[in-house]
Amino acid sequence: MVILVAGPSTPSQELAASIAGTINARLVTAKTKIFPDGEHYVRITERLNNEKVYIVQSLSPPQNDSLIQAMLLADAALGAGASSVGLIAPYIAYSRQDKRFLEGEPISIRVVLKALRSAGYDELVTVEIHKPGSLEWFDGRTVNLSPYEYMAGKLDIKGDILVLAPDRGALHRAKKLAAALGAEYDYLVKHRDRVTGDIVMEPKEIPAKGRIVILVDDIISTGGTIAKAAKLLATQGAERVYALVAHALLVGNALEKLKNSGITRVYSANTVIKKNSPILEYIDIGPLIARALSV
Amino acid sequence: MVILVAGPSTPSQELAASIAGTINARLVTAKTKIFPDGEHYVRITERLNNEKVYIVQSLSPPQNDSLIQAMLLADAALGAGASSVGLIAPYIAYSRQDKRFLEGEPISIRVVLKALRSAGYDELVTVEIHKPGSLEWFDGRTVNLSPYEYMAGKLDIKGDILVLAPDRGALHRAKKLAAALGAEYDYLVKHRDRVTGDIVMEPKEIPAKGRIVILVDDIISTGGTIAKAAKLLATQGAERVYALVAHALLVGNALEKLKNSGITRVYSANTVIKKNSPILEYIDIGPLIARALSV
Repeated sequence: MVILVAGPSTPSQELAASIAGTINARLVTAKTKIFPDGEHYVRITERLNNEKVYIVQSLSPPQNDSLIQAMLLADAALGAGASSVGLIAPYIAYSRQDKRFLEGEPISIRVVLKALRSAGYDELVTVEIHKPGSLEWFDGRTVNLSPYEYMAGKLDIKGDILVLAPDRGALHRAKKLAAALGAEYDYLVKHRDRVTGDIVMEPKEIPAKGRIVILVDDIISTGGTIAKAAKLLATQGAERVYALVAHALLVGNALEKLKNSGITRVYSANTVIKKNSPILEYIDIGPLIARALSV
Repeated sequence: MVILVAGPSTPSQELAASIAGTINARLVTAKTKIFPDGEHYVRITERLNNEKVYIVQSLSPPQNDSLIQAMLLADAALGAGASSVGLIAPYIAYSRQDKRFLEGEPISIRVVLKALRSAGYDELVTVEIHKPGSLEWFDGRTVNLSPYEYMAGKLDIKGDILVLAPDRGALHRAKKLAAALGAEYDYLVKHRDRVTGDIVMEPKEIPAKGRIVILVDDIISTGGTIAKAAKLLATQGAERVYALVAHALLVGNALEKLKNSGITRVYSANTVIKKNSPILEYIDIGPLIARALSV
């Protein structure tokens, strides 16, 4: 029987419970504490008798702590008797630093993936990593789940839906969500208004007027792009605007920006720390992850 | 020519400058910042044309951040053209979790050393790691420097000196410091006073009465042991009590405890974040480290 060990990073415990419930796996919660000098401690208090173990530990902020905890947990699991140990990290920090944009930079995601391997993980399950190609730096089995189709099945939005990607590079996400919803899709283009000089964002081909728009992206970080798009789509006659993302990081005053943009609701998978807001709704992707495990 | 890259953790920049000054090496300071979402960023803005590079980065608190920065710096240095990259980490976090004290714990220091190797380091120079045997988990050249003889040369303490280890396990440190000072050494034993029931600590064989005592240890963490020893040695007639350590972590109210113990001064190597106190004196071990480099 597969065993799931819930790590300390939020929302790993909730997610581990959801996955365990879906596949009827044994669920163990890791003990954790921080020593007075700041060192992190983890412990798995149950014997893992030669079983396949998955650690559920999102590499969500505070990223460095989550990462070190994940590494310590692999060693603890192998020491407690696991036959092999996989990591379920629905969000992987540092995935946007996937090349040397400037000379002298590190390829941070490569460093992270190699460190996880060095700690003992031989399998990595994640959700919508920024660039799927990065996973080649992990020397083991990898699974990168696209959450959009699954999330579409949990929405209760009726009407004439248009799914929009914030730019052309994100069009594949809009395509997936639109297919699952039986809706049309397009992407936003930016141009400068010749009269006012303002930046305008609008769908490339399909007008938003009178339609229900769902903006789709992998991450909302500072919220700037989505907030701006929502505002402009309203001026272009969109009836309502939603956003749907895999990872709602919502850094700084992102939630306030989104509220002020007039957006109706932001849907996110439960991959990072949850925030509380009437415009925010989390969709539990535990069942989606559960189906991808090699059990 | 060897190149030293100073990392962001305190006191790495001061130490890198001291080492570079001793061996007349080129000194480069890494750029660093934290993104709004909490991810750390490093960059080495100079070309490292096929040179041997040492990153100077203490794994001092905040340990997890220091460790991730160290890992990113190795990848950055190799990307910037270094022929090989060694780490000078005068303090290595997690070195006290060097075995599974309880079932289900990780061997944290092993995880740390393997992660550093996975990031690209092929050499590791440190100062007084808690258990030298741990370094076997680093697959590369390692140097573990004992700082006590070097520090003895920087002291200006006159009189009838007795060097004391806080327990028998630390006697080898007392022996080294005493040899360098031409002093006697001993270790403290704990026993319970038959009349009052109090715990008493005193030198095993050599009375402290009328002497200048130097307590020596690898780490002062919460300061409890050293403060208690200093107090008891005063009641046993010691003229003055000093402490000398490699790593003054000084967690929580450690400095206050030490002040209240009546200790005259605490000497520490500059391996972790420095604190400000009239009873605290740092000894720069840059020259000691410089002499150990393979240049």
